[in-house]
Amino acid sequence: MTSSKLLDSSCSIARSLGVLGERWTFLILREAFLGATRFAEFRSALGIASDVLTDRLATLVEYGVLAREPYQEPGSRPRDAYQLTAAGRELNIVLAALQQWGDAHLPWPDGPTIERRSRADDRPVRVAFVDDRDDVVEPQDVVALRTAAYPR
Amino acid sequence: MTSSKLLDSSCSIARSLGVLGERWTFLILREAFLGATRFAEFRSALGIASDVLTDRLATLVEYGVLAREPYQEPGSRPRDAYQLTAAGRELNIVLAALQQWGDAHLPWPDGPTIERRSRADDRPVRVAFVDDRDDVVEPQDVVALRTAAYPR
Repeated sequence: MTSSKLLDSSCSIARSLGVLGERWTFLILREAFLGATRFAEFRSALGIASDVLTDRLATLVEYGVLAREPYQEPGSRPRDAYQLTAAGRELNIVLAALQQWGDAHLPWPDGPTIERRSRADDRPVRVAFVDDRDDVVEPQDVVALRTAAYPR
Repeated sequence: MTSSKLLDSSCSIARSLGVLGERWTFLILREAFLGATRFAEFRSALGIASDVLTDRLATLVEYGVLAREPYQEPGSRPRDAYQLTAAGRELNIVLAALQQWGDAHLPWPDGPTIERRSRADDRPVRVAFVDDRDDVVEPQDVVALRTAAYPR
Protein backbone atom coordinates (compact mmCIF):
# COMPACT_ATOMS: atom_id res chain seq x y z
CA MET A 1 0.00 0.00 0.00
CA THR A 2 1.46 3.35 -0.97
CA SER A 3 1.30 6.36 1.31
CA SER A 4 -1.26 7.99 -0.97
CA LYS A 5 -3.56 4.97 -0.72
CA LEU A 6 -3.22 5.08 3.05
CA LEU A 7 -4.19 8.75 2.99
CA ASP A 8 -7.40 7.91 1.13
CA SER A 9 -8.44 5.34 3.69
CA SER A 10 -11.57 5.80 5.79
CA CYS A 11 -9.46 4.57 8.73
CA SER A 12 -7.73 7.34 10.64
CA ILE A 13 -4.96 4.97 11.76
CA ALA A 14 -4.17 4.35 8.09
CA ARG A 15 -4.33 8.08 7.26
CA SER A 16 -1.99 8.93 10.14
CA LEU A 17 0.41 6.27 8.86
CA GLY A 18 0.20 7.81 5.39
CA VAL A 19 1.91 10.88 6.86
CA LEU A 20 3.92 9.28 9.69
CA GLY A 21 4.48 5.66 8.69
CA GLU A 22 7.59 5.95 6.53
CA ARG A 23 10.83 4.66 7.94
CA TRP A 24 12.61 7.40 9.96
CA THR A 25 9.64 9.71 10.35
CA PHE A 26 8.92 8.93 14.01
CA LEU A 27 12.62 9.29 14.81
CA ILE A 28 12.75 12.66 13.04
CA LEU A 29 9.82 13.71 15.20
CA ARG A 30 11.57 12.42 18.32
CA GLU A 31 14.51 14.70 17.50
CA ALA A 32 12.14 17.61 16.87
CA PHE A 33 10.65 17.10 20.34
CA LEU A 34 14.17 17.04 21.79
CA GLY A 35 14.81 20.43 20.17
CA ALA A 36 16.24 19.78 16.69
CA THR A 37 15.11 22.29 14.07
CA ARG A 38 17.89 22.33 11.46
CA PHE A 39 18.52 19.87 8.64
CA ALA A 40 22.09 19.26 9.82
CA GLU A 41 20.88 18.56 13.38
CA PHE A 42 18.44 15.90 12.21
CA ARG A 43 21.02 14.40 9.89
CA SER A 44 23.79 14.15 12.45
CA ALA A 45 21.52 12.92 15.26
CA LEU A 46 20.07 10.14 13.11
CA GLY A 47 22.81 9.34 10.60
CA ILE A 48 20.16 9.48 7.89
CA ALA A 49 20.84 9.99 4.15
CA SER A 50 20.18 13.57 2.99
CA ASP A 51 17.76 12.61 0.24
CA VAL A 52 15.66 10.52 2.64
CA LEU A 53 15.66 13.31 5.22
CA THR A 54 14.65 15.86 2.57
CA ASP A 55 11.77 13.64 1.50
CA ARG A 56 10.50 12.99 5.04
CA LEU A 57 10.73 16.67 6.07
CA ALA A 58 8.83 17.67 2.91
CA THR A 59 5.99 15.25 3.76
CA LEU A 60 5.81 16.53 7.33
CA VAL A 61 5.67 20.14 6.07
CA GLU A 62 3.06 19.24 3.42
CA TYR A 63 0.72 17.80 6.06
CA GLY A 64 1.25 20.57 8.59
CA VAL A 65 3.30 18.68 11.16
CA LEU A 66 6.37 20.87 10.72
CA ALA A 67 6.57 24.47 9.48
CA ARG A 68 9.51 25.87 7.52
CA GLU A 69 11.08 28.97 9.01
CA PRO A 70 13.96 30.63 7.16
CA TYR A 71 17.14 31.52 9.01
CA GLN A 72 20.53 32.79 7.93
CA GLU A 73 23.85 32.41 9.68
CA PRO A 74 26.50 35.08 9.03
CA GLY A 75 28.38 34.24 5.84
CA SER A 76 26.00 31.41 4.85
CA ARG A 77 23.10 31.23 2.44
CA PRO A 78 19.57 31.38 3.84
CA ARG A 79 18.32 27.98 5.03
CA ASP A 80 15.08 26.53 6.37
CA ALA A 81 14.56 25.48 9.96
CA TYR A 82 11.72 23.10 10.86
CA GLN A 83 9.45 23.88 13.79
CA LEU A 84 6.73 21.62 15.17
CA THR A 85 3.29 23.10 14.53
CA ALA A 86 0.42 22.77 17.01
CA ALA A 87 -0.68 19.62 15.11
CA GLY A 88 2.88 18.32 15.27
CA ARG A 89 3.13 18.90 19.00
CA GLU A 90 0.02 16.77 19.46
CA LEU A 91 2.08 13.81 18.22
CA ASN A 92 3.83 13.95 21.58
CA ILE A 93 1.24 11.49 22.83
CA VAL A 94 1.81 9.05 19.95
CA LEU A 95 5.56 9.06 20.60
CA ALA A 96 4.97 8.70 24.33
CA ALA A 97 2.67 5.72 23.75
CA LEU A 98 5.30 4.01 21.57
CA GLN A 99 7.95 4.78 24.17
CA GLN A 100 5.85 3.48 27.06
CA TRP A 101 5.21 0.21 25.25
CA GLY A 102 8.91 -0.19 24.42
CA ASP A 103 9.91 0.54 28.02
CA ALA A 104 7.47 -2.11 29.23
CA HIS A 105 8.02 -4.84 26.65
CA LEU A 106 11.46 -4.25 25.10
CA PRO A 107 13.27 -2.80 28.13
CA TRP A 108 16.70 -1.23 27.99
CA PRO A 109 19.11 -2.82 30.50
CA ASP A 110 19.75 0.46 32.33
CA GLY A 111 16.09 1.47 32.40
CA PRO A 112 14.22 4.12 30.40
CA THR A 113 16.41 6.80 28.82
CA ILE A 114 13.64 9.42 28.72
CA GLU A 115 10.98 10.14 31.30
CA ARG A 116 8.03 12.49 31.15
CA ARG A 117 6.98 14.68 34.04
CA SER A 118 4.38 17.38 34.62
CA ARG A 119 5.82 20.86 34.34
CA ALA A 120 3.71 22.28 37.14
CA ASP A 121 4.46 19.81 39.93
CA ASP A 122 7.12 17.47 38.58
CA ARG A 123 5.08 14.29 38.79
CA PRO A 124 5.70 11.26 36.55
CA VAL A 125 3.34 11.22 33.59
CA ARG A 126 2.05 8.31 31.51
CA VAL A 127 -0.29 7.82 28.56
CA ALA A 128 -3.71 6.43 29.48
CA PHE A 129 -7.31 6.21 28.32
CA VAL A 130 -9.61 8.73 30.02
CA ASP A 131 -13.34 9.29 29.64
CA ASP A 132 -15.19 12.59 29.15
CA ARG A 133 -15.09 13.24 32.92
CA ASP A 134 -11.28 12.82 32.79
CA ASP A 135 -11.52 9.55 34.74
CA VAL A 136 -8.92 6.94 33.81
CA VAL A 137 -10.34 3.88 32.02
CA GLU A 138 -8.26 0.70 32.00
CA PRO A 139 -7.36 -0.49 28.47
CA GLN A 140 -9.28 -3.75 28.89
CA ASP A 141 -12.40 -1.70 29.73
CA VAL A 142 -12.24 0.26 26.45
CA VAL A 143 -14.30 -1.02 23.52
CA ALA A 144 -13.83 0.07 19.90
CA LEU A 145 -17.07 0.42 17.94
CA ARG A 146 -17.73 1.04 14.25
CA THR A 147 -19.68 4.27 13.77
CA ALA A 148 -22.31 5.07 11.12
CA ALA A 149 -19.45 6.51 9.00
CA TYR A 150 -17.73 3.12 8.84
CA PRO A 151 -17.74 1.90 5.21
CA ARG A 152 -19.97 -1.13 4.65
CA MET B 1 18.36 1.82 9.64
CA THR B 2 17.40 -1.85 9.73
CA SER B 3 14.89 -3.24 12.19
CA SER B 4 17.67 -5.02 14.09
CA LYS B 5 19.58 -1.74 14.54
CA LEU B 6 16.39 -0.12 15.81
CA LEU B 7 16.00 -2.96 18.30
CA ASP B 8 19.49 -2.28 19.68
CA SER B 9 18.74 1.38 20.28
CA SER B 10 18.73 2.84 23.78
CA CYS B 11 15.57 4.72 22.72
CA SER B 12 12.36 2.84 23.45
CA ILE B 13 10.57 4.62 20.59
CA ALA B 14 13.17 3.15 18.21
CA ARG B 15 12.90 -0.31 19.79
CA SER B 16 9.12 -0.26 19.50
CA LEU B 17 9.48 0.69 15.84
CA GLY B 18 11.91 -2.20 15.37
CA VAL B 19 8.97 -4.52 16.08
CA LEU B 20 6.05 -2.36 14.87
CA GLY B 21 7.49 0.03 12.31
CA GLU B 22 7.35 -2.07 9.16
CA ARG B 23 4.78 -1.18 6.57
CA TRP B 24 1.46 -2.99 7.29
CA THR B 25 2.20 -3.93 10.88
CA PHE B 26 -0.05 -1.33 12.51
CA LEU B 27 -2.85 -2.23 10.11
CA ILE B 28 -2.43 -5.93 10.90
CA LEU B 29 -2.77 -4.98 14.56
CA ARG B 30 -5.84 -2.89 13.81
CA GLU B 31 -7.46 -5.98 12.27
CA ALA B 32 -6.43 -8.08 15.27
CA PHE B 33 -8.17 -5.59 17.57
CA LEU B 34 -11.27 -5.78 15.36
CA GLY B 35 -11.25 -9.56 15.84
CA ALA B 36 -9.18 -11.07 13.02
CA THR B 37 -7.16 -14.14 14.06
CA ARG B 38 -6.68 -16.15 10.87
CA PHE B 39 -4.18 -15.62 8.09
CA ALA B 40 -6.94 -15.50 5.47
CA GLU B 41 -8.85 -12.89 7.48
CA PHE B 42 -5.86 -10.57 7.67
CA ARG B 43 -5.09 -11.11 4.01
CA SER B 44 -8.57 -10.42 2.74
CA ALA B 45 -9.17 -7.43 5.04
CA LEU B 46 -5.92 -5.75 3.99
CA GLY B 47 -5.27 -7.03 0.46
CA ILE B 48 -1.70 -7.74 1.53
CA ALA B 49 0.70 -10.14 -0.24
CA SER B 50 1.00 -13.51 1.51
CA ASP B 51 4.79 -13.37 1.88
CA VAL B 52 4.65 -9.92 3.48
CA LEU B 53 1.87 -11.00 5.83
CA THR B 54 3.83 -14.14 6.78
CA ASP B 55 6.88 -12.02 7.56
CA ARG B 56 4.98 -9.45 9.65
CA LEU B 57 3.07 -12.08 11.63
CA ALA B 58 6.35 -13.93 12.35
CA THR B 59 7.92 -10.75 13.76
CA LEU B 60 4.88 -10.06 15.93
CA VAL B 61 4.97 -13.63 17.26
CA GLU B 62 8.75 -13.47 17.83
CA TYR B 63 8.38 -10.37 20.02
CA GLY B 64 5.37 -11.62 21.93
CA VAL B 65 2.72 -9.34 20.44
CA LEU B 66 0.75 -12.21 18.92
CA ALA B 67 0.63 -15.86 19.98
CA ARG B 68 0.14 -18.75 17.58
CA GLU B 69 -2.74 -21.06 18.42
CA PRO B 70 -3.35 -24.10 16.21
CA TYR B 71 -6.81 -24.80 14.90
CA GLN B 72 -8.22 -27.27 12.43
CA GLU B 73 -11.35 -27.04 10.34
CA PRO B 74 -13.04 -30.29 9.28
CA GLY B 75 -11.39 -31.63 6.13
CA SER B 76 -8.51 -29.11 6.25
CA ARG B 77 -4.95 -29.33 7.47
CA PRO B 78 -4.10 -27.81 10.89
CA ARG B 79 -3.42 -24.07 10.71
CA ASP B 80 -2.25 -21.36 13.07
CA ALA B 81 -4.48 -18.62 14.39
CA TYR B 82 -2.97 -15.44 15.84
CA GLN B 83 -4.19 -14.07 19.15
CA LEU B 84 -3.14 -10.80 20.74
CA THR B 85 -1.11 -11.43 23.90
CA ALA B 86 -1.34 -9.19 26.98
CA ALA B 87 1.61 -7.18 25.58
CA GLY B 88 -0.16 -6.98 22.23
CA ARG B 89 -3.39 -5.74 23.79
CA GLU B 90 -1.43 -2.89 25.39
CA LEU B 91 -0.82 -1.57 21.88
CA ASN B 92 -4.47 -0.56 21.89
CA ILE B 93 -3.34 2.81 23.25
CA VAL B 94 -0.75 3.32 20.49
CA LEU B 95 -3.35 2.61 17.81
CA ALA B 96 -5.85 4.85 19.59
CA ALA B 97 -3.31 7.70 19.73
CA LEU B 98 -2.62 7.37 15.99
CA GLN B 99 -6.35 7.27 15.31
CA GLN B 100 -7.08 10.30 17.48
CA TRP B 101 -4.42 12.33 15.70
CA GLY B 102 -5.75 11.27 12.29
CA ASP B 103 -9.32 12.12 13.27
CA ALA B 104 -8.19 15.58 14.41
CA HIS B 105 -5.75 16.48 11.63
CA LEU B 106 -6.62 14.30 8.62
CA PRO B 107 -10.38 14.07 9.11
CA TRP B 108 -12.62 11.77 7.10
CA PRO B 109 -15.52 13.67 5.45
CA ASP B 110 -18.20 11.64 7.25
CA GLY B 111 -16.46 11.79 10.63
CA PRO B 112 -14.56 9.12 12.57
CA THR B 113 -15.28 5.54 11.51
CA ILE B 114 -14.35 4.04 14.88
CA GLU B 115 -15.07 5.38 18.34
CA ARG B 116 -13.94 4.13 21.70
CA ARG B 117 -16.20 3.95 24.71
CA SER B 118 -15.91 2.69 28.27
CA ARG B 119 -17.42 -0.76 28.70
CA ALA B 120 -18.81 -0.03 32.16
CA ASP B 121 -20.78 3.18 31.51
CA ASP B 122 -20.58 3.76 27.74
CA ARG B 123 -18.75 7.07 27.90
CA PRO B 124 -16.52 8.38 25.08
CA VAL B 125 -12.88 7.61 25.74
CA ARG B 126 -9.74 9.42 24.52
CA VAL B 127 -5.99 9.03 24.96
CA ALA B 128 -4.40 11.54 27.34
CA PHE B 129 -1.43 12.14 29.59
CA VAL B 130 -2.13 11.46 33.27
CA ASP B 131 0.10 11.82 36.31
CA ASP B 132 0.64 9.33 39.15
CA ARG B 133 -2.54 10.56 40.86
CA ASP B 134 -4.47 9.80 37.64
CA ASP B 135 -4.99 13.54 37.05
CA VAL B 136 -5.03 14.57 33.38
CA VAL B 137 -2.00 16.67 32.32
CA GLU B 138 -2.30 18.75 29.15
CA PRO B 139 0.26 17.82 26.47
CA GLN B 140 1.90 21.27 26.59
CA ASP B 141 2.45 20.79 30.33
CA VAL B 142 4.41 17.54 29.84
CA VAL B 143 8.20 17.76 29.68
CA ALA B 144 10.48 14.99 28.40
CA LEU B 145 13.73 14.63 30.33
CA ARG B 146 16.82 12.54 29.66
CA THR B 147 17.45 10.14 32.54
CA ALA B 148 20.79 8.90 33.93
CA ALA B 149 20.46 5.90 31.56
CA TYR B 150 20.51 8.22 28.51
CA PRO B 151 23.69 7.52 26.46
CA ARG B 152 26.18 10.39 26.53
